[in-house]
Amino acid sequence: MSHNTFGHLFRFTTWGESHGPSIGVVVDGCPPGIAISAEMIQRDLDRRKPGQSRFTTQRREDDAVRILSGTFEDERDGVLKTTGTPISLLIENTDQRSKDYSEIRDKYRPGHADFTYHQKYGIRDYKGSGRASARETASRVAAGAVARLVIPQVKIRASLVQMGPHKIDYGNFDWAEVDNNPFFCADPKAAKEWEGYLDGIRKAGSSVGAVIEVVAEGVPPGWGAPIYGKLSADLASAMMSINAVKAVEIGAGVEAASLTGIENADEMRAGNAGPTFLSNHAGGILGGISTGDPVVVRFAVKPTSSILTPRRTVTTANEDTEVSTKGRHDPCVGIRAVPIGEAMMAVVLADHFLRHRGQTGRDAGIGY
Amino acid sequence: MSHNTFGHLFRFTTWGESHGPSIGVVVDGCPPGIAISAEMIQRDLDRRKPGQSRFTTQRREDDAVRILSGTFEDERDGVLKTTGTPISLLIENTDQRSKDYSEIRDKYRPGHADFTYHQKYGIRDYKGSGRASARETASRVAAGAVARLVIPQVKIRASLVQMGPHKIDYGNFDWAEVDNNPFFCADPKAAKEWEGYLDGIRKAGSSVGAVIEVVAEGVPPGWGAPIYGKLSADLASAMMSINAVKAVEIGAGVEAASLTGIENADEMRAGNAGPTFLSNHAGGILGGISTGDPVVVRFAVKPTSSILTPRRTVTTANEDTEVSTKGRHDPCVGIRAVPIGEAMMAVVLADHFLRHRGQTGRDAGIGY
Amino acid sequence: MSHNTFGHLFRFTTWGESHGPSIGVVVDGCPPGIAISAEMIQRDLDRRKPGQSRFTTQRREDDAVRILSGTFEDERDGVLKTTGTPISLLIENTDQRSKDYSEIRDKYRPGHADFTYHQKYGIRDYKGSGRASARETASRVAAGAVARLVIPQVKIRASLVQMGPHKIDYGNFDWAEVDNNPFFCADPKAAKEWEGYLDGIRKAGSSVGAVIEVVAEGVPPGWGAPIYGKLSADLASAMMSINAVKAVEIGAGVEAASLTGIENADEMRAGNAGPTFLSNHAGGILGGISTGDPVVVRFAVKPTSSILTPRRTVTTANEDTEVSTKGRHDPCVGIRAVPIGEAMMAVVLADHFLRHRGQTGRDAGIGY
Amino acid sequence: MSHNTFGHLFRFTTWGESHGPSIGVVVDGCPPGIAISAEMIQRDLDRRKPGQSRFTTQRREDDAVRILSGTFEDERDGVLKTTGTPISLLIENTDQRSKDYSEIRDKYRPGHADFTYHQKYGIRDYKGSGRASARETASRVAAGAVARLVIPQVKIRASLVQMGPHKIDYGNFDWAEVDNNPFFCADPKAAKEWEGYLDGIRKAGSSVGAVIEVVAEGVPPGWGAPIYGKLSADLASAMMSINAVKAVEIGAGVEAASLTGIENADEMRAGNAGPTFLSNHAGGILGGISTGDPVVVRFAVKPTSSILTPRRTVTTANEDTEVSTKGRHDPCVGIRAVPIGEAMMAVVLADHFLRHRGQTGRDAGIGY
Repeated sequence: MSHNTFGHLFRFTTWGESHGPSIGVVVDGCPPGIAISAEMIQRDLDRRKPGQSRFTTQRREDDAVRILSGTFEDERDGVLKTTGTPISLLIENTDQRSKDYSEIRDKYRPGHADFTYHQKYGIRDYKGSGRASARETASRVAAGAVARLVIPQVKIRASLVQMGPHKIDYGNFDWAEVDNNPFFCADPKAAKEWEGYLDGIRKAGSSVGAVIEVVAEGVPPGWGAPIYGKLSADLASAMMSINAVKAVEIGAGVEAASLTGIENADEMRAGNAGPTFLSNHAGGILGGISTGDPVVVRFAVKPTSSILTPRRTVTTANEDTEVSTKGRHDPCVGIRAVPIGEAMMAVVLADHFLRHRGQTGRDAGIGY
Repeated sequence: MSHNTFGHLFRFTTWGESHGPSIGVVVDGCPPGIAISAEMIQRDLDRRKPGQSRFTTQRREDDAVRILSGTFEDERDGVLKTTGTPISLLIENTDQRSKDYSEIRDKYRPGHADFTYHQKYGIRDYKGSGRASARETASRVAAGAVARLVIPQVKIRASLVQMGPHKIDYGNFDWAEVDNNPFFCADPKAAKEWEGYLDGIRKAGSSVGAVIEVVAEGVPPGWGAPIYGKLSADLASAMMSINAVKAVEIGAGVEAASLTGIENADEMRAGNAGPTFLSNHAGGILGGISTGDPVVVRFAVKPTSSILTPRRTVTTANEDTEVSTKGRHDPCVGIRAVPIGEAMMAVVLADHFLRHRGQTGRDAGIGY
Repeated sequence: MSHNTFGHLFRFTTWGESHGPSIGVVVDGCPPGIAISAEMIQRDLDRRKPGQSRFTTQRREDDAVRILSGTFEDERDGVLKTTGTPISLLIENTDQRSKDYSEIRDKYRPGHADFTYHQKYGIRDYKGSGRASARETASRVAAGAVARLVIPQVKIRASLVQMGPHKIDYGNFDWAEVDNNPFFCADPKAAKEWEGYLDGIRKAGSSVGAVIEVVAEGVPPGWGAPIYGKLSADLASAMMSINAVKAVEIGAGVEAASLTGIENADEMRAGNAGPTFLSNHAGGILGGISTGDPVVVRFAVKPTSSILTPRRTVTTANEDTEVSTKGRHDPCVGIRAVPIGEAMMAVVLADHFLRHRGQTGRDAGIGY
Repeated sequence: MSHNTFGHLFRFTTWGESHGPSIGVVVDGCPPGIAISAEMIQRDLDRRKPGQSRFTTQRREDDAVRILSGTFEDERDGVLKTTGTPISLLIENTDQRSKDYSEIRDKYRPGHADFTYHQKYGIRDYKGSGRASARETASRVAAGAVARLVIPQVKIRASLVQMGPHKIDYGNFDWAEVDNNPFFCADPKAAKEWEGYLDGIRKAGSSVGAVIEVVAEGVPPGWGAPIYGKLSADLASAMMSINAVKAVEIGAGVEAASLTGIENADEMRAGNAGPTFLSNHAGGILGGISTGDPVVVRFAVKPTSSILTPRRTVTTANEDTEVSTKGRHDPCVGIRAVPIGEAMMAVVLADHFLRHRGQTGRDAGIGY
């Protein structure tokens, strides 16, 4: 994983800036012969796209995806399929407002990458954060949608499990609720309460962080690899690469530090189809390799850095000043990070599936 | 990062099993002309090596490192230096006890990689966990010692900041204390209290988790890169690849989720040498690129899985049984993870230093 | 180099099929701050594009390139520059004739990748050879044009030096002649003779191979690296990856086998600016590292496989048949391979420049 | 392929200098469960090792290989097998003569990497050429021996087919003869003649180049991949990375340039087990993917640069001087390149086998 490319056998390269003509992704290494359509990809993109409730940015983007390559419809069966060659996906930017950028051109916005891009490159696309914009995540979601097609046996879902200091009650957890509220939250009660909370945050000219939990069911034992190719290490890299993410946890995560070895042990019992685990503190991964239990990853997103409340900063000429961001922004970027987290889980798993198959010749573990 | 190799320009490949004749690492891409010696590497290895207090495993390994390649001592200056070619480092295993392995041969130990390696590969080196043993981390520490030589301007230190549920008091934090207690803990008061606590855990036949904080000072602005080559993403991968790690945090980490945008903003002021930050919730990284502030990473280690208390498990023939581990084991593997975390910080930074220099021609940011 | 990506620090990923809506390339890792424009890239594309003489395919493609990302024009200086983020370049396909593909759909054309793509993937884009079409090389040329901007001190030129069995006379070699004939040939006398020869080949319903020589002047000593990152190895991979290439030579090339050590030695003499070589059998590379002398690479291109003369083949149902190709094809694909060879030289050198700078901190050798 | 690592899924990293304590290789990504032994690897090493006839260097090295990791002998079956983890192989250097290196320390030997290493790194291991020594190729041969175990269905053989200007007569070609002469030559008549020729070269204080042909039989259709992952491109990189190689050809190679499309077409006929080719100008590769026919690669090796005849050169202080090399050297390094070429063929094929299997789930093509 380096530069703008993620993955090894199944891999993708994203490109594009917030206010350029378009953004896109090239997915390379996809297995051939998989039925695919723009609609299948659009479905995931539509979940991430802005402007779907008052709790996300009001920027209007259709995020309509076009498949430019890597697929073929044989006239004899009339089904569009992957060919094994690179799949180029393009999304037009349609709502880049023309505006005066001089404020952010000449100031470093706290929490943004303005200062660091400027230091690194000596040049900075100050229009809508350029490459550092969360707009890039649409490309990830598109890649993730292709990845899902590679591992249809795996069910990947995610939920917002914390907004600001407010955690969900896992007792209320119901995957079916995720699409019934504007927060992708599996706890309908929490989601209800968060509405007022987030309205307050927004009206106060502030923003708030969040925690997202992503769960993959149906991952067989055996995916992943020691030592630097651990499934957990790749998931950590994948999630930490998402804009604004500051922490990644697998299974028990940070809580594992507080447990004793007696408590933390996921004991095993003989099952009809082989050994089973009595708990899943491991989050479905031991030694970097999947156990067959659900793969559970959580990641924490910091509050949106673009807020109306003025913050102290400096100009690019190193003079003290203040800045407040008046644009269209998500009061809680964590919300739209939910489908993004799913996408990153999908690309990591698809890649490890192919890598495992390459080394061992098997799709899964040796079985029982 | 895949297979057993970590890094891009500065990279290393580790090999070796717990009970094989030796372990080692090949460090590739090191800049030429750097003075080096086995002693410089040994210093870091000695901090990680087992048997240094009653709180770590009693396995006795000298971990004496030999440099087999990649260096040259010109008779005209008599200084051993790196040549730019691969540096092969080898450590003999000297204390692999001959014993009866049949118990762990035929049982999957909960929390260990026994089941997953078996599922993945269909063959498992059951002697001392083979490749999954934490013994591999000696190789990382050796690579990290070389990495430190590449970036001498960067000071990398780490401390245990939590043992089980017991956190340090940051008010007592003093780097000078780290080497004054058996826990690499910067809070001497906490370290004192942990002695009794850990004795209790050990006597109870259990173990406990921990949190380690690694801090790199002297990293200039500009290292790191968008999007999948983020400094934060590589650090997450690096730390999560360490045995038993279940969570990685950058800066405010998980806590960032609970903050508002107003609180989380690291405000800036004009300084004599350019912009300065008034706080460091970012942990020294914005948009995946270093800010110039200390890079702060924490990672959580689960409790040692090898415990004396019997746990339920199954045999490789899928029959219910119990297992307890009588070998020599650390009651808190987090302790020895402190120098390992430093090493992984060092290798990530050395790699990003070279990558940044390659793309931009500068060692640091554009400066002020 | 794998999949559809070439290069390490300076790298690019191409996508697109012959008869899809468009083709393109994402160039990643480009240094920031370099002035760039679509025109600069177009210049190289125009040299490769089809239909420029009766000796290349009559397919009409403008090959007009659009820059979709990775550049920024600061309103304060009005110059479009690279930003260090991925540069996405797109070229529309405009002349994909609608036609009856059933002949090539059901037959494997000898010399083409029809059979092998079908065997590998089980699905084959039979429209204009899909991904296997030489149309992909437009993307390379676009990437090469960007690479040239990274190393402006290096002058890269190429010439056809053999067409069929007819070699040029190096006594007539004059770079200024390359653009004065339809063959990119530095020997005007040979070029003149080849016109009639190639007309004859074309009229006979056949085609012919060629050899291209690419020369890079201004490469300083020190670029390249042992052992598997040799400049020569990367050039070999680069040139061999071009469609229809069957051989790659560096410097003396195949002839080196016939020389004695006495003859082959490039002797050295003290020069004002350091050691100089009295000959260049090495082709500017020793031990995989540049010497400072011109880097000289030749590659041989097989004759175009699409010919009017019927050849024996089989159907996809494994039945004997014949096939002849009536489409628009180059009688000598080697001609248009000239700018492609230049492009591949440029991308290899740009990549090695950045890699060398990353490891050593210098742009060139240590100098004298 | 970069730095000192070759390959993607099946990959290896070599290390070590000519006059260091040892050299070695770490083979990573090997499939698990393959029976292996030091003897299996030794067999190939013994073919490459020096001092086996008067036509190779008289340096005495046993090249005894030790397996340090990545294998396991389960006491229940008593067979040493690969475990899927990195296989570390080590070979001691035993015959590094202590001598006065001041001559080569202070002079650049023509044809050697002395000048370029010095320019690149500013430091040079002048003892026996250090890392640039052909001694590194022992590590390749060891890796190749492991690769052969991964693809036992493929038979890889090589022959010297040209020594200096003297080519073999393919009419005499007989694989069985390769081990009956000191040149690994399949034409016994040519081998006989070469004895006197090479004696003359040696006595004249000179050396001579050679061409080696490597043939892999049993490669199924479907291995390899477009565009930059072409089997041909990887073979070109592999062979060109061998010391002293200046040209690589696939199938008809350079001769393809002289052929017409009518001649070059490998026509096809229906066979019982699917389509067959009537000729193999393609060298078993079309569009970068294997056809099922033998994969044929040739590479040209320049004459040994170390010769007794004095050649003009300069000192490291840029003063004119002369140098002759009195050490123990091969008069034709091409001879020992024969097993090296086989090894590189093996590693490329093993890697492509795993990559193909990863992407498609099949070991071979779709078949008939």
